[in-house]
Amino acid sequence: MKAVVFDNELKLVNDYKKPEPKEGEALVRVTLAGICNTDYEITKGYMGYVGILGHEAVGVVEDVNSSDKSLVGKRVVPEISYGCKKPDCDYCAEKLYRHCPERHTLGIFHKDGVFAQYFTMPTEVLFEVPENVPDEQAVFVEPLAAALEITEQLHIKPMDKVVVLGDGKLGLITALALNAENIDVTLVGKHQNKLDIAKNQGVKTSLLNDFKVEKKYEVVVEATGSVSGFETALALTKPRGVLVLKSTVAASKELNLAPIVIDEITVLGSRCGQFPPALRLLKSQKVDFSPLISATYPVDKAIEAFEKNKEKDTLKVLLKF
Amino acid sequence: MKAVVFDNELKLVNDYKKPEPKEGEALVRVTLAGICNTDYEITKGYMGYVGILGHEAVGVVEDVNSSDKSLVGKRVVPEISYGCKKPDCDYCAEKLYRHCPERHTLGIFHKDGVFAQYFTMPTEVLFEVPENVPDEQAVFVEPLAAALEITEQLHIKPMDKVVVLGDGKLGLITALALNAENIDVTLVGKHQNKLDIAKNQGVKTSLLNDFKVEKKYEVVVEATGSVSGFETALALTKPRGVLVLKSTVAASKELNLAPIVIDEITVLGSRCGQFPPALRLLKSQKVDFSPLISATYPVDKAIEAFEKNKEKDTLKVLLKF
Repeated sequence: MKAVVFDNELKLVNDYKKPEPKEGEALVRVTLAGICNTDYEITKGYMGYVGILGHEAVGVVEDVNSSDKSLVGKRVVPEISYGCKKPDCDYCAEKLYRHCPERHTLGIFHKDGVFAQYFTMPTEVLFEVPENVPDEQAVFVEPLAAALEITEQLHIKPMDKVVVLGDGKLGLITALALNAENIDVTLVGKHQNKLDIAKNQGVKTSLLNDFKVEKKYEVVVEATGSVSGFETALALTKPRGVLVLKSTVAASKELNLAPIVIDEITVLGSRCGQFPPALRLLKSQKVDFSPLISATYPVDKAIEAFEKNKEKDTLKVLLKF
Repeated sequence: MKAVVFDNELKLVNDYKKPEPKEGEALVRVTLAGICNTDYEITKGYMGYVGILGHEAVGVVEDVNSSDKSLVGKRVVPEISYGCKKPDCDYCAEKLYRHCPERHTLGIFHKDGVFAQYFTMPTEVLFEVPENVPDEQAVFVEPLAAALEITEQLHIKPMDKVVVLGDGKLGLITALALNAENIDVTLVGKHQNKLDIAKNQGVKTSLLNDFKVEKKYEVVVEATGSVSGFETALALTKPRGVLVLKSTVAASKELNLAPIVIDEITVLGSRCGQFPPALRLLKSQKVDFSPLISATYPVDKAIEAFEKNKEKDTLKVLLKF
């Protein structure tokens, strides 16, 4: 089968061995997949991963290795990790497979990814896509679930003022998702064209230069990935407020954490999320991610797609199978 | 009156003007005061403060500028800040005076401190000391309240395993306080003699070198004030656990915050706390802070007391009036 593989270099392989589902696993034929910045980071050596890339996909179940074949023929999206499911694993007991110490993660850790004609995953981490949700929206379920993870971890109250800092994919999806849940959110970024995507769907937006930096927001979501973004986020969070760390900031200069103590700020690390609430929001059609699609490439042009992903103004790049 | 003043240099002033209580304030005659590391930081320029130092004290109310004189003659401890009490101040409404944007803080910010024969404070931030609590214990109420602030901010569950990292004053008081509240706490530090103070009162302790660093603790309190302490604390916090930041860590080298996102850690800044629960714990006599007293100096030897405070193995230094 065709597969996009990283093995010291990024390459398109035409004769990769088609995977066989183990007991309890489904074989899924991929129809559409999305490139995430993590995929790009992996091609630079992140996680030391070697294998098929990709963890955002929609596909159709072709077979299930189990007596229960009810998923066959269904359009599904995969969670990115599956766990050990041992009786004493607290994380698996709570379906927090992404924190299981023995987890496997699609295209990132000990598990071939979804940038291929087929992948396998245990059936318990495959979720059926509602009929009214096209592939082009369903392919956003994983980053959308990550955005909604904030509302899983944190009780955002009706009178809370929320700022999302950063108008890349992560910031846009987060602002659109929170706004769709009737949360008072303002997206702050540096690119008017990107801000407009959120604005057109009713989100309050502001260019960073026009935005007054005051310690008055109950919740600030850091989605820039830069140290200066982290510092701006701290300067916006009110005493006893919450700074949600969505991107993996690496401090390349001195970072003063004293304001966190003085203002009793909570810094909340937030990563992936559960799929059911994300699918429910997609089904409601209260969000539209199609303006975030910068380009769609056939899998044969996967290398070009990765090049496109690197360009400065690109948002989401999709791979069609 | 005698007063310990910082004005570019630390000095003992013998003829400082005795303060007069404003409307709603009490005049307090100091009997015993404690030197905090913040006082020492101020003598190095922290906060740019000039005036009488000190914020930990016990004293007796000599007068109240109000028709209600019920506090006169009472032994009291002062909270460190008072707020604006304006109707629209959310922080003052919740008695979180330390977060009021217009706050005054004893010996730190726009308010003379307690290292003097007298100080004044609004009566609502003075708390009566229970009869069975001697001055030598009551003088610890402010750092004890700061330790208990963790339980105000965070629901520590009965099965949670807690590590306090750092066996200085802050770590010792925190470990003793949490242990007194039947929390499963282990104090980890580098000094057997300091660890023994906690051990003698029933706290589990371990030298850092003997302690296995595993991501398995629900709550880790960083009380070392060093970047390496912060990194060790991160390495001990289990996924979705809470790292309580009690000391003002300033990163002097690159600090990688990515693990906070990957493991969805909550970093909780924690500073001062409310006095009533701290006084309740002192009254119960479940904690004994006397082993933390390294030395007591008469106010006339305040400069020597500050010198003693700088010595490596010193814990709490007191000033007697």
